[in-house]
Amino acid sequence: MTIEASKSDAVSAKIRLGMVGGGQGAFIGAVHRMAARLDDHYDLVAGALSSTPDKSKVSGAALGLDPDRCYGSFAEMAEKEAARPDGIEAVSIVTPNHVHFAAAKAFLERGIHVICDKPLTSNLDDAHRLKEVADNSKSLFILTHNYTGYPMVRHARELVQTGALGDLRLVQMEYPQDWLAEPVEQTGAKQAVWRTDPAQSGVGGSTGDIGTHAYNLGSFISGLELEELAADVHTFVEGRRLDDNAHVMMRFKGGVKGLLWCSQVAIGNENGLKVRIYGTKAGIEWTQADPNYLWFTKLGEPKQLITRGGAGAGSAASRVTRIPGGHPEGYLEAFATIYSEAAAAIQAARSGVTVDPAVVYPTVDDGVKGVAFVTACIESSRKNGAWVKL
Amino acid sequence: MTIEASKSDAVSAKIRLGMVGGGQGAFIGAVHRMAARLDDHYDLVAGALSSTPDKSKVSGAALGLDPDRCYGSFAEMAEKEAARPDGIEAVSIVTPNHVHFAAAKAFLERGIHVICDKPLTSNLDDAHRLKEVADNSKSLFILTHNYTGYPMVRHARELVQTGALGDLRLVQMEYPQDWLAEPVEQTGAKQAVWRTDPAQSGVGGSTGDIGTHAYNLGSFISGLELEELAADVHTFVEGRRLDDNAHVMMRFKGGVKGLLWCSQVAIGNENGLKVRIYGTKAGIEWTQADPNYLWFTKLGEPKQLITRGGAGAGSAASRVTRIPGGHPEGYLEAFATIYSEAAAAIQAARSGVTVDPAVVYPTVDDGVKGVAFVTACIESSRKNGAWVKL
Amino acid sequence: MTIEASKSDAVSAKIRLGMVGGGQGAFIGAVHRMAARLDDHYDLVAGALSSTPDKSKVSGAALGLDPDRCYGSFAEMAEKEAARPDGIEAVSIVTPNHVHFAAAKAFLERGIHVICDKPLTSNLDDAHRLKEVADNSKSLFILTHNYTGYPMVRHARELVQTGALGDLRLVQMEYPQDWLAEPVEQTGAKQAVWRTDPAQSGVGGSTGDIGTHAYNLGSFISGLELEELAADVHTFVEGRRLDDNAHVMMRFKGGVKGLLWCSQVAIGNENGLKVRIYGTKAGIEWTQADPNYLWFTKLGEPKQLITRGGAGAGSAASRVTRIPGGHPEGYLEAFATIYSEAAAAIQAARSGVTVDPAVVYPTVDDGVKGVAFVTACIESSRKNGAWVKL
Amino acid sequence: MTIEASKSDAVSAKIRLGMVGGGQGAFIGAVHRMAARLDDHYDLVAGALSSTPDKSKVSGAALGLDPDRCYGSFAEMAEKEAARPDGIEAVSIVTPNHVHFAAAKAFLERGIHVICDKPLTSNLDDAHRLKEVADNSKSLFILTHNYTGYPMVRHARELVQTGALGDLRLVQMEYPQDWLAEPVEQTGAKQAVWRTDPAQSGVGGSTGDIGTHAYNLGSFISGLELEELAADVHTFVEGRRLDDNAHVMMRFKGGVKGLLWCSQVAIGNENGLKVRIYGTKAGIEWTQADPNYLWFTKLGEPKQLITRGGAGAGSAASRVTRIPGGHPEGYLEAFATIYSEAAAAIQAARSGVTVDPAVVYPTVDDGVKGVAFVTACIESSRKNGAWVKL
Repeated sequence: MTIEASKSDAVSAKIRLGMVGGGQGAFIGAVHRMAARLDDHYDLVAGALSSTPDKSKVSGAALGLDPDRCYGSFAEMAEKEAARPDGIEAVSIVTPNHVHFAAAKAFLERGIHVICDKPLTSNLDDAHRLKEVADNSKSLFILTHNYTGYPMVRHARELVQTGALGDLRLVQMEYPQDWLAEPVEQTGAKQAVWRTDPAQSGVGGSTGDIGTHAYNLGSFISGLELEELAADVHTFVEGRRLDDNAHVMMRFKGGVKGLLWCSQVAIGNENGLKVRIYGTKAGIEWTQADPNYLWFTKLGEPKQLITRGGAGAGSAASRVTRIPGGHPEGYLEAFATIYSEAAAAIQAARSGVTVDPAVVYPTVDDGVKGVAFVTACIESSRKNGAWVKL
Repeated sequence: MTIEASKSDAVSAKIRLGMVGGGQGAFIGAVHRMAARLDDHYDLVAGALSSTPDKSKVSGAALGLDPDRCYGSFAEMAEKEAARPDGIEAVSIVTPNHVHFAAAKAFLERGIHVICDKPLTSNLDDAHRLKEVADNSKSLFILTHNYTGYPMVRHARELVQTGALGDLRLVQMEYPQDWLAEPVEQTGAKQAVWRTDPAQSGVGGSTGDIGTHAYNLGSFISGLELEELAADVHTFVEGRRLDDNAHVMMRFKGGVKGLLWCSQVAIGNENGLKVRIYGTKAGIEWTQADPNYLWFTKLGEPKQLITRGGAGAGSAASRVTRIPGGHPEGYLEAFATIYSEAAAAIQAARSGVTVDPAVVYPTVDDGVKGVAFVTACIESSRKNGAWVKL
Repeated sequence: MTIEASKSDAVSAKIRLGMVGGGQGAFIGAVHRMAARLDDHYDLVAGALSSTPDKSKVSGAALGLDPDRCYGSFAEMAEKEAARPDGIEAVSIVTPNHVHFAAAKAFLERGIHVICDKPLTSNLDDAHRLKEVADNSKSLFILTHNYTGYPMVRHARELVQTGALGDLRLVQMEYPQDWLAEPVEQTGAKQAVWRTDPAQSGVGGSTGDIGTHAYNLGSFISGLELEELAADVHTFVEGRRLDDNAHVMMRFKGGVKGLLWCSQVAIGNENGLKVRIYGTKAGIEWTQADPNYLWFTKLGEPKQLITRGGAGAGSAASRVTRIPGGHPEGYLEAFATIYSEAAAAIQAARSGVTVDPAVVYPTVDDGVKGVAFVTACIESSRKNGAWVKL
Repeated sequence: MTIEASKSDAVSAKIRLGMVGGGQGAFIGAVHRMAARLDDHYDLVAGALSSTPDKSKVSGAALGLDPDRCYGSFAEMAEKEAARPDGIEAVSIVTPNHVHFAAAKAFLERGIHVICDKPLTSNLDDAHRLKEVADNSKSLFILTHNYTGYPMVRHARELVQTGALGDLRLVQMEYPQDWLAEPVEQTGAKQAVWRTDPAQSGVGGSTGDIGTHAYNLGSFISGLELEELAADVHTFVEGRRLDDNAHVMMRFKGGVKGLLWCSQVAIGNENGLKVRIYGTKAGIEWTQADPNYLWFTKLGEPKQLITRGGAGAGSAASRVTRIPGGHPEGYLEAFATIYSEAAAAIQAARSGVTVDPAVVYPTVDDGVKGVAFVTACIESSRKNGAWVKL
């Protein structure tokens, strides 16, 4: 064990960042801002923090933004910032899902890098169109599937890549929560209202909000492509307009099988994201609530508990580890790692150099896969669990 | 906490017990014998311990059985013991699955109670025929789904029955193992050989051997009836003749959904049986490897860790608790509880009295359901995951 | 992993066993009987189950004992059983501590092996006198420090003996409970009454009842001799006549340091016995409430979780393992292992052969050490924590 | 559960911050900077990052500091910054211990607030002198006993303060590590070199580096004053000049007993800080490596696992909680909370208003107690474990 800090602070000039969404009362906007600050690669200088212009101003003032750069809409912000010599280089989009496409398009088309919350869009058409925009833009598109930033997730992925698990057989994912066990959206709770509203969230409820995270994480670690799925998607809470539970059987390319469960009504679970992957030689298990640990068992050997910063953690984990083992890093650190990976890519782009191949972040392609996953779950369930190709 | 022992030793005259199977090299026979001994309700006095007569004699001698009562076949044993004035009152059947039906029939038809290992039979026809035999017999039939004997499982069931969970929504079951991650049956390992042999095990591999346990336990705790299932059953190990992994989506009566995963190739899992049940008011979680704990969470309250022998354990758990909290009871104790429940029923039958309604054990009906579950899994999987009614 | 049962059932003729104490209302007597039954090496045939003759008869009848062999006192039992051709070969002494000496003496002097509960005696004089009696007897003396029977404790000891830990540095022991957090002895609760009564328990309360267990276990695993200790022993509950908490600093031979905490008032702890041992090369950690696991960490390597019956468990653990990994064994199994070790020694003595050197059980010497430990704790505490030599 | 973010971003003008120590190769300096950034209350604008002027410049440049404000010594920095109209308002002192006193004095005497790493000083004289300086200064002194910033630690303290534990009886603290199990300071590892050097660390090794943390945390939660202690302090690694293990028995005012173990040689422990506190009504247990959980058990009730952001967490925890339950916060967040508490106090001082009484941070008094604790441990140990008054 070393107790030297392994992450250096920023050296390059900071990236000028704007934000769409994330005004007062929002949840994920504040998270993005903390994540952007932690490793000191960004300066937040502009915002269209709310779809209500007045609220946008007030929220911006609370963040110390220049009032001139608190915009009433993302469209205005994109246009005006693109015109400024000191305009933003990147924008974080942290709105409800249905806004992602149009907002991302506006910035990408003006040469501004986009860091966008998940799921990519509220429907598959938008997802495909956004991919086209992103593919045709010189700007980068980073999707904040933040769980991919956890060091032990990186280590799990490295174990798969280096063959430590042998040939993969099983990818088991679950993400149970309980915060929607009752119809809290009917009380007006902001987070619940939009997340259960098809117009804002899209076709998927639990599938879109957390199922995509579980699926993305299973894919990220395993490196596998999903071939088809069969789903039993359900809404338990009366009056709710989107699903709040899904059971999904999966078949990945190469004969690998998977199982995914996501739920917003499983009482006793806060954010119970868990991924277990089994191959011919070894198995791994990782739980988001205890993210500094990775269980790793080789066939015929005792279970190993590999810790972030500990002896068994490899270079992929160490790259994104800030502090020594036994001093836990958490959700914000993982989120910050996505921002730091994005910063590395943006700074490389700024300098016209190739980014370090070790830099990894979820892309628009991962986003399209996520929306395709949600769409397939809903379709399969409508067909009473028939297999649907991805 | 009390530290008085809560289980009394036997008072009634012990039950004269025979055993079919369980000779040298067997696993589950020795377990049944320890279970029968622990609470002192039985005397093992006869055996057809092996299908090879010589081996049966040797095995019986090793157990201190009277050589005259070491039989070469269950048929001989049934006939001769039934004719003795001091003949066995009950028999434990601990053979591979394909023998269960004929053996159980032989004893039931002669008025001898049967304690039989699971799954009930190797195919559904036999299961139905055995049910008919059992229903027509005055003798009792007890199926050793031993996990139902764990005190915290009893407490979980009591929580459901008393409405502490509200209306049920989800029953999530899993039973991963790793002992068949490689083709060990090809090395001649006795347990692996018969458990992967369709002629001895029946149509199900992992589904029959451990899937039935998970399904039984989910049903036992929840009290629910399975309506239909959709399964993706697979054999990962080349050359293996039965399934070694299954993913199953379930629909129970009353709109409750379920998910079941069983696997014999999930490296890092020994006997990872786990049941999680969620209702409108609360959720519970129980893991077989740590059986003295039950997680219980009411909506909007902190998680509670209820311990066997501890403050939160109710009367159903206390009835089958031997020693104080913090001194763990294990697998053999749970198995012994099935034997003690059986003893209570047999002794009541012997005395012509009604058994205490608190006495609970799995019956031939549970056995039929288990075999029907396996059969439905295989059928669904052959139909590419179509829903199959139970 | 194998799923063959590794313990064979008894072959030799069973040992005729008597019991002193353990009548109705007792706790540990029932535990001893279950332990004696599990592996089938004993027949309980006689008892002086209570100091009240009538109660002894009633208790014996409840156990199915021959009324002629239900005695009103241990003295009568020792005399009469010694005179019978089919008299007991061994006796279990499960009374309060103050009776151990006289009872053990009565049987040892008549050539009857003694299996005695801990602590050895209620004072150090009796302990030394009992050691003299035992040393001069041809009969065996087994002390039921039952935690030494846990397979993972055996494995821990083997790791120390084979040098896997390097040179030892630290032995940290703790045994917190909470059942005496209030003055329950004042309510007449039988277990609390005698355990807090100096006349029955001796000079130590928590130190004698559970501190001796922790100390014995630390010594058993480490193989170390205690040189001196400094203790702060305290009674928190008003009116209690014996200690209910102790903090003890220890120095073992060879420069090894230790720390021991025992408590009966630490709310939230049932039987929180835990031992951690650290050497120059590795460290281990074992917790009684989760006894099937042993943490083992080599310097500079990931933590290993070794499981009973699992890949990392060595021969010392396997010798005393009954069932496969993942099917937990518990307190009664560990207790039964002490009985089986005793049986092996008694049967060897019966046959005049040398017992297998792998057979291990706590002896009268361990008992003397335990009482000396309690005595030293009390003495040190009276001297305000001065170091007291053992 | 809510998933609204509960911490607002900064509103007031940011605090101009300087740093002493924390240049390249340092550990804790980078941690302080991340902590200062997370909640956006500070701007780092000046530094004396190394005692080597050139290194200080290079380190400052790497952080993007104005070269004019990268000083060669803290003395120069204090003088020049105090003279600037835009000079620093606060300084973080993150050097080895022996520098704390002089550096803190220099800034406090110039009206600059001090945020100082622990232990307060390398000896008790300096500690008392620093207290005098701080008491006579109008500037604030904040000691970064960062573990006091964890939300579940705040909740534990609130439980004690509100009487949920009843009258306290026991405070058990431990902080085992293993990074100094071998003489790594002899390899030149920077962190090990200074921490084992009496000239830089002071009289205590493990006692000063981690024992003070454990003691501070036990005191912070319990609110108790230590009266006397008896210690067995030891150096296991040959050639090491400071202690690497300590066993400490404690007596707090009001008859409360405590036990403290700190170690740098306990293999398998990374930063195993743990505090357990027991009263007449309930007990609590908190472990730094899993900081989002607090075990809370009321006498006669099931154990509760209270989670950060979960149902059982009270207002003291919620005040310092950034994100919803199940999304773990870690070490940096707790550290950042100290910085945010300090910011609240500094901003109140700036505005001449009284700080919110809910704001809590360790002070110079806590620092004096910590150094007194180390000094008493060493003294007691030199007197062979005699009780030493604090």
